[in-house]
Amino acid sequence: MKTKLRSWDRNTKPEDEQMELSEIYRPIQEDLVRVKDALRSINRVDFSWLSEQLSYVITASGKGIRPALTLLSGKFYKYDLDLLVPMAVSVELMHTATLVHDDAIDKSEVRRGQPTINKLWGDETAILLGDFLFAKAGMFVADTKNPYVIKLFSQTLATISSGEINQFRSAYQTAQNREQYIKRIAAKTASLFCLSTESGAVLSGAPEIAAKALKDYSYNMGVAFQIVDDLLDFVGTEEMLGKPVGSDLEQGTLTLPAMMLLEKYPKNNPVTDVFEKKDMTSIPRAIEMVRNSTIIEECYRLAQEYSAKAKNCLKVLPDVASRTSLKELADYVIRRQV
Amino acid sequence: MKTKLRSWDRNTKPEDEQMELSEIYRPIQEDLVRVKDALRSINRVDFSWLSEQLSYVITASGKGIRPALTLLSGKFYKYDLDLLVPMAVSVELMHTATLVHDDAIDKSEVRRGQPTINKLWGDETAILLGDFLFAKAGMFVADTKNPYVIKLFSQTLATISSGEINQFRSAYQTAQNREQYIKRIAAKTASLFCLSTESGAVLSGAPEIAAKALKDYSYNMGVAFQIVDDLLDFVGTEEMLGKPVGSDLEQGTLTLPAMMLLEKYPKNNPVTDVFEKKDMTSIPRAIEMVRNSTIIEECYRLAQEYSAKAKNCLKVLPDVASRTSLKELADYVIRRQV
Repeated sequence: MKTKLRSWDRNTKPEDEQMELSEIYRPIQEDLVRVKDALRSINRVDFSWLSEQLSYVITASGKGIRPALTLLSGKFYKYDLDLLVPMAVSVELMHTATLVHDDAIDKSEVRRGQPTINKLWGDETAILLGDFLFAKAGMFVADTKNPYVIKLFSQTLATISSGEINQFRSAYQTAQNREQYIKRIAAKTASLFCLSTESGAVLSGAPEIAAKALKDYSYNMGVAFQIVDDLLDFVGTEEMLGKPVGSDLEQGTLTLPAMMLLEKYPKNNPVTDVFEKKDMTSIPRAIEMVRNSTIIEECYRLAQEYSAKAKNCLKVLPDVASRTSLKELADYVIRRQV
Repeated sequence: MKTKLRSWDRNTKPEDEQMELSEIYRPIQEDLVRVKDALRSINRVDFSWLSEQLSYVITASGKGIRPALTLLSGKFYKYDLDLLVPMAVSVELMHTATLVHDDAIDKSEVRRGQPTINKLWGDETAILLGDFLFAKAGMFVADTKNPYVIKLFSQTLATISSGEINQFRSAYQTAQNREQYIKRIAAKTASLFCLSTESGAVLSGAPEIAAKALKDYSYNMGVAFQIVDDLLDFVGTEEMLGKPVGSDLEQGTLTLPAMMLLEKYPKNNPVTDVFEKKDMTSIPRAIEMVRNSTIIEECYRLAQEYSAKAKNCLKVLPDVASRTSLKELADYVIRRQV
């Protein structure tokens, strides 16, 4: 159990993780290619520099968990790629748009090992490119012609952006509890996972109970995913993360590990120094203290609880290959290092 | 003729203009109240500070031309307020969202005589609040359940944002021609006017020829509107504009009056000094030169040509009260001072 929990120090290579993901994505592998092709095609625009910027954000795109979730969720009933591919493209574009805006807001200079849009072309371009990506995402979801998922799409964006405003407003505040933390990460991360699976379910004509199960799966899986993400910011390496370690502390985002550190050491705490005295030199000490504590295990334990809940939601679904994939994905998000 | 063209020096009060608009809006007056109520209702959110920010942007909202266009355009055939009101709310929210982002991009401190969101709460809040407003706009347009207008909505946002990127990329460049200028203002202004009328037409079951006429009307009226807007930046007063005179020059946006000034005085031109030497002290001289030239008349003449074309588009439509309103609106956008 212990070695599994402390998987972060296994030192797996990103390539291995990509292979693991490919294995999980197997039932939808060919269809994901269609999604990627459609994503790449959005750079066909009138202005060459816009085309360049779009190619840059799309090429630099990540693990493709969200479009995979849509396709996998669409595999339980009528698997209609004419609806599922645009939906999958849409969730990935929304994700990309939020990252572009987030990086401008956080003044992040690096993401996935590459300079951010705001670093390369300035905040102004980041704002407008993000808007353009939201628009494109909206055009793809409109192609589903399904009023329910179209509305869900916009509701999700409202949840994400109000969640981000919330995070920004509570920056550098140490007085936040775990309930607020879970609510915050559910809004900023799990909500888009929920859109991804619920839309896949609805567009494939899933009965309500199945759609709800897939949505609940995503809520729990998304929370687990973000807990691990927040932990990796402490225990990962810059190479693994593709961005500096301790970014969250620097931006004043109180994540679970920092929260736990505050609980354990209410006095003389480096997190307090960073947040209240804006003493950024205390960040390495905070990281060191988290690494040498039981916080890692505690975070993994909580993430695993959510992951287990996620897997449990899948029980009501037909036993097809994509159910296994979703189950494995809920394990993967705990195991992953990038 | 001359006095009409030089209407900017009539010194009409904003209250008089509002009265003029109320008169134009008469056929839809009561229904605009429903739109305003729905707009105000979006501040019902979980977080009190978000509610405060939303109330601020909604209260500070402008002349309501876009929602009025939707309602007026919906009056030629089946006037269905259950569809037209959410659509009208949607276009106004999209407009507000773009303004919030534009102000952050332009670092504007004042709009409509009030501090901007970025000035009051910072760029980060402006980005996220804009995103939230786009999301809300998307939720309202989704309520029309009409796939065509829903897609048009996102396409319009793509046009506006790519147009804005275009404007930003061509900032401080003097080598731009009139065709590029018209294309630019069509993207950034007329496109949303087009969405406003075309959606109103489609949602009221207008035949294709009528929907096209209303779209073409908006293209021409929107271009006229923006030409006047760009001129007012030179000939207006800070009090009238609710923002400093010469803002466009300061932000490096080459508008028609500046373009004409460059054509008339290719050497020793204050616009060149502002754009190429970043000498902002030359702005007052550029303004003075425009005011003392025939540029004002020339701009008004061009705007009137577009306004006339707009009115001409209306001929194919049934002769109902809202046709008169649209006609008057095309005159008003030339006459207006704010």
